Amino acid sequence: MPDQHIVTAYDAELRRLGGQIAEMGGLAETLVADSVAALSRNDLELAQRVITHDKRLDQMQRTVEEEAILLIAKRQPMATDLREVISFMRIANDLERVGDLAKNIAKRVIAIDSPIAHKQFLVGVQHLVEIALEQLANVLNAYSNREDGLARAVRDRDTDIDALYTSLFRELLTYMMEDPRNIGQCTHLLFSAKNIERIGDHATNIAETVHYAITGEMWEGDRPKADTTSVESLPVPG
Amino acid sequence: MPDQHIVTAYDAELRRLGGQIAEMGGLAETLVADSVAALSRNDLELAQRVITHDKRLDQMQRTVEEEAILLIAKRQPMATDLREVISFMRIANDLERVGDLAKNIAKRVIAIDSPIAHKQFLVGVQHLVEIALEQLANVLNAYSNREDGLARAVRDRDTDIDALYTSLFRELLTYMMEDPRNIGQCTHLLFSAKNIERIGDHATNIAETVHYAITGEMWEGDRPKADTTSVESLPVPG
Repeated sequence: MPDQHIVTAYDAELRRLGGQIAEMGGLAETLVADSVAALSRNDLELAQRVITHDKRLDQMQRTVEEEAILLIAKRQPMATDLREVISFMRIANDLERVGDLAKNIAKRVIAIDSPIAHKQFLVGVQHLVEIALEQLANVLNAYSNREDGLARAVRDRDTDIDALYTSLFRELLTYMMEDPRNIGQCTHLLFSAKNIERIGDHATNIAETVHYAITGEMWEGDRPKADTTSVESLPVPG
Repeated sequence: MPDQHIVTAYDAELRRLGGQIAEMGGLAETLVADSVAALSRNDLELAQRVITHDKRLDQMQRTVEEEAILLIAKRQPMATDLREVISFMRIANDLERVGDLAKNIAKRVIAIDSPIAHKQFLVGVQHLVEIALEQLANVLNAYSNREDGLARAVRDRDTDIDALYTSLFRELLTYMMEDPRNIGQCTHLLFSAKNIERIGDHATNIAETVHYAITGEMWEGDRPKADTTSVESLPVPG
């Protein structure tokens, strides 16, 4: 039964790629959580660990991409199977970028290099990362269990992250205007918040890929969007 | 001569994909130049045009990805040819992200919604985008003409962009500290500068892909890196 044998080998390769994606997802979640923990506690050692471990995620993404392409060239999968392999590549790409964003936050910890001056500077950032981590966990579950409804819920909830980011952006600018000594730390926190908001965007990208893997279609229309910091006027200095 | 016929059809498909990449490259360059022109002149109409045209770039990237994958599945290219098709996908991905970054700058123009208060705020941003555009033009030439030396020159020059960005970051923070009324505009300019610095990173990614397409290998070691804003202490408020 040579055909049977080929199908089984193919399935095994697919399963192995799926396992690599799951491992990448777990690592990406850890890097995001650790980067903000390092930021909150001024933990330079943890920040350095995030930067080091991100390289592993980059390497895994390259491996998934190469193996997926070889699989396509070797097995010529069609329809559902081809979608599955394309989805692996897309998700690996998004997870690699999530790792980069966590690394960027970790680098800011090293740049700030001192405890955050006022605890309230951190409240919004911590809230933001909690939602982003929930989104990541949900979309990885949606992928493992092929749940289109959960993927759609992740996409719809991205507006929460965007709205929270917008409000945090204005809050941090207000601290900067109140006292110029806050400008340095708050600027780094602004960039960190923007990185978390973009992690949310990647969770949404993955949700779109999950929908595509399940149905073969992309969602219609623009995704919901509520980050308005770059299309709104800013708080007036006072 | 069916084999000859297949090879010719394959070459035609490769050439068509190459043409799409060239078109994407031209569009990406235009979006970047226009976004900073809109920023400099407070040209909301031009900013809106950048946002609209970026969607076209997204669509082109999807098309290149789909056609490249179908080509791999259909023709099972090996070695050099497979590298060529993978390179198309990677470069299209980077160019799509360059377009996103130009769109982000255009959105900041709409957010600022007023002429930049002091011309000197813009000098560094304009200088930064000039170098980024040169890098993009050079790497697209390196790709069209298969010039590995030019690709390496692009990679090596990324440190110039990073060093300039670092100095601009400090300069903009100084304006913010001098007068809190500058905080709004300078924050948007900081994010715009960061977007341009990342456009430079994508030019470097493309340089790496060109090297891979030509030689089948990745460059050894970490790329040179001189953006130190996130690992350095900040100017002291004064």
